[in-house]
Parts: sequence; C-alpha cells; structure tokens
Amino acid sequence: MTTIVPQDLDLLPTGQSLEDARAEGERAYELDRAHVFHSWSAQSQIDPRPILASEGSYVWDGTGNRLLDFASQLVNINIGHQHPKVIAAIQDQAAKLCTIAPQYANDARSEAARLIAERTPGDLNKVFFTNGGADANEHAIRMARHHTRRYKVLSRYRSYHGGTDTAINLTGDPRRWPNDYGNSGVVHFHGPFLYRSQFHAENEQQETERALAHLDQLIRFEGPDSFAAIILESVPGTAGVMVPTPGYLAGVREICDRYGIVYIADEVMAGFGRTGKWFAVEHFNVVPDLITFAKGVNSGYVPLGGIAISEKIAATFANRPFPGGLTYSGHPLATAAAVATINVMEDERIVENAARIGSEILGPGLRGLADRHPSIGEVRGLGVLWAIELVIDRATKEPLAPYGSSSPAMNEIIAACKAGGLLPMANFNRIHAVPPCTVTEAEVREGLAILDSVLDIADSHVGS
Amino acid sequence: MTTIVPQDLDLLPTGQSLEDARAEGERAYELDRAHVFHSWSAQSQIDPRPILASEGSYVWDGTGNRLLDFASQLVNINIGHQHPKVIAAIQDQAAKLCTIAPQYANDARSEAARLIAERTPGDLNKVFFTNGGADANEHAIRMARHHTRRYKVLSRYRSYHGGTDTAINLTGDPRRWPNDYGNSGVVHFHGPFLYRSQFHAENEQQETERALAHLDQLIRFEGPDSFAAIILESVPGTAGVMVPTPGYLAGVREICDRYGIVYIADEVMAGFGRTGKWFAVEHFNVVPDLITFAKGVNSGYVPLGGIAISEKIAATFANRPFPGGLTYSGHPLATAAAVATINVMEDERIVENAARIGSEILGPGLRGLADRHPSIGEVRGLGVLWAIELVIDRATKEPLAPYGSSSPAMNEIIAACKAGGLLPMANFNRIHAVPPCTVTEAEVREGLAILDSVLDIADSHVGS
Ligand SMILES: Cc1ncc(COP(=O)(O)O)c(C=O)c1O
Ligand SMILES: Cc1ncc(COP(=O)(O)O)c(C=O)c1O
Repeated sequence: MTTIVPQDLDLLPTGQSLEDARAEGERAYELDRAHVFHSWSAQSQIDPRPILASEGSYVWDGTGNRLLDFASQLVNINIGHQHPKVIAAIQDQAAKLCTIAPQYANDARSEAARLIAERTPGDLNKVFFTNGGADANEHAIRMARHHTRRYKVLSRYRSYHGGTDTAINLTGDPRRWPNDYGNSGVVHFHGPFLYRSQFHAENEQQETERALAHLDQLIRFEGPDSFAAIILESVPGTAGVMVPTPGYLAGVREICDRYGIVYIADEVMAGFGRTGKWFAVEHFNVVPDLITFAKGVNSGYVPLGGIAISEKIAATFANRPFPGGLTYSGHPLATAAAVATINVMEDERIVENAARIGSEILGPGLRGLADRHPSIGEVRGLGVLWAIELVIDRATKEPLAPYGSSSPAMNEIIAACKAGGLLPMANFNRIHAVPPCTVTEAEVREGLAILDSVLDIADSHVGS
Repeated sequence: MTTIVPQDLDLLPTGQSLEDARAEGERAYELDRAHVFHSWSAQSQIDPRPILASEGSYVWDGTGNRLLDFASQLVNINIGHQHPKVIAAIQDQAAKLCTIAPQYANDARSEAARLIAERTPGDLNKVFFTNGGADANEHAIRMARHHTRRYKVLSRYRSYHGGTDTAINLTGDPRRWPNDYGNSGVVHFHGPFLYRSQFHAENEQQETERALAHLDQLIRFEGPDSFAAIILESVPGTAGVMVPTPGYLAGVREICDRYGIVYIADEVMAGFGRTGKWFAVEHFNVVPDLITFAKGVNSGYVPLGGIAISEKIAATFANRPFPGGLTYSGHPLATAAAVATINVMEDERIVENAARIGSEILGPGLRGLADRHPSIGEVRGLGVLWAIELVIDRATKEPLAPYGSSSPAMNEIIAACKAGGLLPMANFNRIHAVPPCTVTEAEVREGLAILDSVLDIADSHVGS
C-alpha cells in the first residue's frame, strides 16, 4: 500500500490558509447535515466530506489532503478544475450581463451555439439549450415525438439518461426501478457488450450482428410504426464504458432510417473530448438526428446542457411551435463558460491530449494492471473514459459486487483509493478511470500506481 | 401616446460603447437565427431582438433604447438586473471553486440551504437543490409519491409548473396539451377565481367554500387513497395572478391532512419576495409539506432551483434512498449567488420594498388605470406581482384575446408598450406588471404612465 502523504501545505491553491479553509469546511459539514438533502441517498447513511479547493486534476478534502480526481467529479470536469481562462470568462460575463430571458438574442448564447454546431457532425446546426443532461434528454424525446407523431421510445439496458421522470425512465439501470410506474412508453433492449454478451456471441462481429438483429426484431415485435426515437449513449458511461463493437452504431443508424425512427445520441458524458474526439459518434462515423450534451460543454462550471438538432428535425418546428422550454434556456453566464471552454480546449489541444493519454498511457497502463491483478476481468475504454471490471473469478466472470449494488470488498477498495490519494468513480463491481481531459502523463502514472496497490485488496477476494 | 425617447447614450452601463454593443448585438442576432433553437416557438416566426445591457429595472435593446423591465425577464430578476454585490459574489466564488459534485459538502451550498431553511415557514428545514423550477417540481412529486406510496397528483387549471414532462403535465395551461399522452396521473381541478368563477359564486367567501367543496368532492370521486400530492402555486403567476380567496389555502391544507395527501406549494414565481413576503404562503398562514422554488432564490443570475422539505418527509428518506438527483444539484456558483442574493435582500429591505410598492404605488396605480380605461376588466395582485385583465365588454367579461391564444389587439398593445419604453409580460388577454422587487416609486410611475397611454388601444376595442 502506498502510504498516504497529506500535503504539507499552509496555503491552498486559492491562497486561503489551510486553517481557515478547514474551519470553513467544518461549518459546511455541520450545515450540510442540518439542511442539505442529498441525491440518490438515504440521508442518515451518508457522510458528505467537504472539498476545500480544487485545481487541474486535484481536489483538497476537508483535512487538506490532496486527492487526484480520477472521477472528474461526476465525469464533467473535462477541462480540469478551475481553469483560469474559463474563470475569467465567467467573471467578465457576470460583470457584463448575468442573465436574460430565452426570447432575446444574446452574444454568449449565439456564439456558444455556433461553436457547438461547428463541432457536431453532419447538419446538426441548431442548438437548444437546457440546464443539464436530464432536461436535454427530456426535450430531445419531445422533439422526436412531435417530429414523428409517435410515442414509444427505445433505450438500452445498462445506461443512464438523467434524474427527471422521463429521463430516469429512459435509464437502463436500477435507479429507474423506484421511478417506473409502467407507463413511460420506454422499451429497453440489449446493446453490444461482448464481455457479458446477451447474445452468446464469441467475437465482436457476432456481437454486432446479433445485437442489431435483436434490436430489429424487438422493433418488429413491438410495432415498427410505434417508435419515435432510439436513445443511446454513444459510449455508455456510468453503466460501464461499453465501447460499441465495430459497425453497431452504423447499424443502429440504418435501423432508424428503415423505420423512420429518430436517432438520439446521448453524449452528456461521452461528448466534448471525453473519448478523445469532440463527439464519441465520430469514432464510428455515424450522424445521429439529435445529440444531447451537458457536462463537458463547459465542464459544469455553470449548469448547462442542450441538444444539437439536425436541419430536418428543426424544420418540423419552423412553422409549428416547439412545445418545450425552461426559464434558463441559453443562460448567458452558462453559455459564456461554454464559449471559453470550447476555445480553450481548441487552443490547448485538450481533445488531442485526451486521445493520446488514452491510447498511450491510460489504456496501456490499465491493461498492464490487468496483467498483474487476477481480479481484473476486463479493461475497456477510449480517451479518458475507462472502466475496469472486478471479478472474483475470471472464468465465470462473477462480479466483485452484484449488479445494482455494492459489496464490502468494493467499499474497502474505494476507501483505500481515497486513503491513497485518489478519487475514483465506482459503480457496482467497476472502478472507472475518468480523469480530466487535461490530465498529464505523470498524473495518470500516479493514479495507476495507487490503483496498482489498492487492487491487491480485490485480488485477495479472487476465488473466494 | 408617449413619444419614444431613445436614450442619448454613448456608453452602456457596462462601459461598452453603444457602437460596439450594437455591432455585437447584430452578430448575436445573425448567429442566433443561424444556430439557436428557441423554446415554445415556431422557429421561423420569431424575431429575437438583442439585449445589449441591463441594470436595475432597465434593459437596453439592440439599438440602445432603454426599456423598463416590467416583466423582470421571466419574473425572475427579483433583485434587479446586475446587482453589484451578487456579481461580486459570483466572481469570488468562481475564483474559489466553480463546482463540486453533490456528494461532497460545500460551504456555499450549506449556507444557501441554511438561509433558505431559516426563511421557510414551519419545519421546512431541509433543502434539495435543482437547476430550475421544472426539475424542482419533478423531484417534489417524486418525494410525495415515495412518501405516500401513492401515484396520482392533483393540480389546478390555470397554472404553470415547468417544461419537463412531468412538470408540463402538472401544468394547467395550453402548453400541456401537446405533451399530454393521457398517462401522467395528474387530475386537474378548478381553483378560486372569483372574476371568472367556475362555481357561480357571488362573493369571496362563497368562492372559497365552493372551490374547497369541489376539490374535496373530486378527491372522493377519484379515490381519496390514490393521491400522493396536491401541487398549487400559492399565487398562480403566468396563468393570471389569481390571489387565493381568504381561507382557501388553509382549506387545502385541511383537505391534505384529512386524506394524507402531500401539499406542495410551487413558489417558483411567487417566492423570494415577489408578493412582498419571503414566501407567498405567509400571507395565508399555511405551512405546506414541500415548497418548490427557483427564479427569485438568486434572481436567475446562475441557474438554480430547489425544494424546501418538511422534517416528516425528509424522515421518509432517512434510511430509504431518495431516488432522484442531478449532476449540478447544489452547484457552488449557483448557491453562492443565492447566499449573496438573500443577504442583499435582507440588508436592503427588498422584500419590504416589494410589499410597500405593491400596496402604496403599483396596486393603487393600476386600479387608477382601471378607473380611466373601460378595457380593464379586473386588476389583481400582491407585492410586485400584478395582472390586469383586458376585456372588450366589462359586463360579459369577453376577453381581448381568447384563452390559450393572442389577438391582433393584444399584439398591438404589446408592441406599443415596447415602443413606449416598457417591457411588459403578456399572457392571452392579460398584461402583467411584475417589475423587480427593487423597483422604485418613480420607475413604477414611469411604467404606469406608459401603460396609461397604451391602454387607449385596448379601449378602442371595447364594445367591438
Ligand atoms: C449519459 C448521461 N446522460 C444524462 C445524464 C444526466 O445529466 P444531468 O445529471 O446533468 O441531468 C448523465 C449524468 O450523469 C449522463 O451520464
Ligand atoms: C410557478 C412556476 N413553476 C415552475 C416554473 C418552471 O421553472 P423553470 O422554467 O425554471 O423550469 C415556472 C416558470 O415560469 C413557474 O412560473
């Protein structure tokens, strides 16, 4: 085990003294416990630790320990923490014009839309802005329903699409269960995932063919004329980073064309550099009809999400009102942060960094861990979006925590990561390595070294 | 008609030259038309004019004309445009820590929750944060469903609750129609509105009694055990500022208690000073189980919404996970803006100002207009939340535009307001006077004078 070296700092990157920051953190904790209601949690079973400061790939916790953020928070800090140029842009926009209603024209909003449209594939030239990923998906489904005049929607198991009602019903993970009243109109299908193939496939080509045949047949059994949309994370993120097998997304595009179904790519997590391209669909040469985004668009410095819309779907609403909206659609402060983020990512070649880190350092490094640690069942990923799947038996693939749940072993591993100076993202039996797109080679090596030592715990469960 | 006096300004309040700002506005307009998809609109039938700057109760349009913002944008700028202390707080928080995931403790989030809990009535001591009003209502309904283990929800006609699917299905205005697939579990009822009474009532007391009897009977006909929640704007806003008749909200509270139904007060528009109290329910001495808020909480300077939660409902989720959440729940930048906003509103006695303006200037002023203009059917309101209802016949109350639509006369009136230097909020046959809570007596008089001249247009339609 790496020994934890609490940083010997008197000042945090903010310039605040550690002593002051700690006192502030303690008060934040007390007030949090008294007044803050937390998401996805049993309120008395959580212990929300203060974060005092952040910079680049690091955050400082309530005692001043520096932690390497291999989760990018909720996989949103693509540009790293506290990028000075994005901060300056937020400060400047705040001084100029914090907000204005959606019905007016605003330069920050217009420029953000232009920069996004310029980067989306095909003719996705119009942008509808929302506050986050869930409301982007809600409004995308609505566009598809009105465009097709159909109701039902297809979504895959092993997916996450957001926390509002329609978005959580699109979701193919257990967070849907308590929110599913059986009337959402969503039909779930299985996507390609060779490691745990639903199709008894033995290679990628088989997995692609069989997954597409399954989807096609499901549509024909459910009624080809009944589906408004297929929504699909281009690379399912939280659900396990299952990079689609070759040809799969192109096959989905074909199926959508065949049946007149709108193809919505959810790139809330996979978009804006995360996979080493601006949009993950670019790896697969497909053009969806709608792309939903959030997170990386401005690294979550200000809440923002949205939908990039094809000309064909936009045309549906040329003379027919689009029946949706939000008070903060196209918020100037949020879109100014997006403008700065996109320009900085371009200038500093951050997307290219994510691609290089993935193919040269993080991917090979995680595969190297798999060589040494029998608990690693599979390593999967692209760019700075990676997952390792922990198993107690490589042959049976029995996971170290059951689907939809955690386990003492996983909890021990997560705690050891944090104690070792690493914030991981964990889900069921997986550890995800999803650092900022700006992460350096040295930081990745630091993270890999911590994982290396921590995985001994996982190994001790192998064969148990 | 007041002649329009374009402000003779060389510099905007931002310090930007008018010439530069205009050029920026023109580019914003062009890019908007090329790339921005707008809410609630047929995209080719809108003409989004640039806003170049804003300050206090004013905004400057694309040609540099100053307009008095009697709409507070979408009734969110309670503290006025560009309040320097809120701007400074946003800038400071941006420099310190733009964002952190919801699972950590953060001082801005904790302090915002404390300040909100301190102001909510009763034991609404816990706060769940969202990005806006729609997702606050979605999550409030979810809390109620899990708390009661029931599904159906009651909501009133003439209401607005937001743009995501569940929120728009709660809504009792025509924006629901294209989004209602008949499966939302929402049952709509009639609230008290003496001017257009559904209950053939002749006075307020009758309206209250009959509206409560109607609600009670609807519940008994629909099944008293089937309802999770009643959601109710404390003063319905966009739908027409129908201040509830005396005793009505207390009666709703009683009905909720009788049948074990959760009472959700939607104070997204009515909260945070708009009615001259921190929360509009205070006028009626009732304590709901949940209060949803957004807009005024930080005047929309950064997207933020949330739910204030009673101890009883919070306790339901002490050991049972709450199944909801959003990446940006409790966003530090947004909550820092809330902390500054609430403190400024307290220090500068802004809620008191809204109350005084309403009872001494704006209310009497609008009633004075009604004395002179036969087109005014009714004047209603509280604080800085007012509506005038325009009719072509006071006896029949026939509206100047039909329910759910506009009319050439209304369009002419709105255009004349803008030409006269006033941004009004308009809905169907109503003009709302909803300036910032910081509005001065002189500004209100300026707005009333513009309305006075413009209402001659409405009068010309009387008897037509
Ligand atoms: C793929 C995907 N879609 C949608 C969402 C929902 O985004 P938000 O939490 O901003 O609503 C997420 C959030 O994790 C996501 O990963
Ligand atoms: C009473 C009320 N509830 C909810 C909402 C929805 O808020 P948002 O647009 O921030 O989602 C609004 C917005 O106008 C509102 O007035």
